Amino acid sequence: FHKKRETGNMKKVLASGLLALCAAGTVLSGSAMAAKAASEKHAEAAIEYRQSLYQLVKSNAAPMFGMLKMKKFDPEVMKTNGMRLEQLADMMADYLLVDTTDFDVPTDAKPALFSNEADVNDKIAALKKVAMDIQAASATGDEGAYAKAIAGLGGTCKSCHDDYKE
Amino acid sequence: FHKKRETGNMKKVLASGLLALCAAGTVLSGSAMAAKAASEKHAEAAIEYRQSLYQLVKSNAAPMFGMLKMKKFDPEVMKTNGMRLEQLADMMADYLLVDTTDFDVPTDAKPALFSNEADVNDKIAALKKVAMDIQAASATGDEGAYAKAIAGLGGTCKSCHDDYKE
Repeated sequence: FHKKRETGNMKKVLASGLLALCAAGTVLSGSAMAAKAASEKHAEAAIEYRQSLYQLVKSNAAPMFGMLKMKKFDPEVMKTNGMRLEQLADMMADYLLVDTTDFDVPTDAKPALFSNEADVNDKIAALKKVAMDIQAASATGDEGAYAKAIAGLGGTCKSCHDDYKE
Repeated sequence: FHKKRETGNMKKVLASGLLALCAAGTVLSGSAMAAKAASEKHAEAAIEYRQSLYQLVKSNAAPMFGMLKMKKFDPEVMKTNGMRLEQLADMMADYLLVDTTDFDVPTDAKPALFSNEADVNDKIAALKKVAMDIQAASATGDEGAYAKAIAGLGGTCKSCHDDYKE
């Protein structure tokens, strides 16, 4: 119940952000549903923000995938980037769930992204868990644990891209 | 001293991120200086990440500037967005201080950004303080405190843009 409330609040936060950008200036009340973009300008801003969030996810995930590939780990980087991925996961519902399908705007998001909110939130929760696993693994000094945690991150990325990204 | 160490680590984190993207795969050791982009591809990735970070800053700051303008405040949004700005401020040195001036890549960053690291870090610290002030103000129920904290955010944005953004 608490989680649902938080998701509603998150949406209010971004909705108000986008509205402010659209010079509307009022603050929307929260909703448990993916909010519809109110205009093409709103949809464009939502997509710009969404893609920016994923650039930050990529900038933190890519070096860890590099470590896994090279079998050369830096636990300090894992700790910092894991923390950042956890923070970005906490922002993610807000940035993802603005339904831009009513407008002809360039995006790789499949329409299904906006009609499966419970599943999307589960996938975001899985990303957050993996981000916390990476931070925990970074303290073990065990390369097997490092590798397992980073592989888990790859799994959560793929799970969402398979279903919701073109 | 602790702060300096942390900044060095931060830079290592992003440097390794960018290198991973450039398929180099090794992890750089930290440095207290702004790191030079190693190639045009590295510079392009650094700029993409830098601009993405600022899009997230904007998405959190803009709704609060809207509140200030309309004198219509939502303390819950202030609390969440203030927290996010604090987290983004903690990432910022890392994303800003990759010196891209050796390459002909489109950016609004003035070259001075990369030769004034102490001042840039002071400005980032000021942003972090204001983000914490906004969170504190959100709990007061006092619209004067809301307005003062948000105006402080505007001041820190301007202070950095004046010196370091075209």
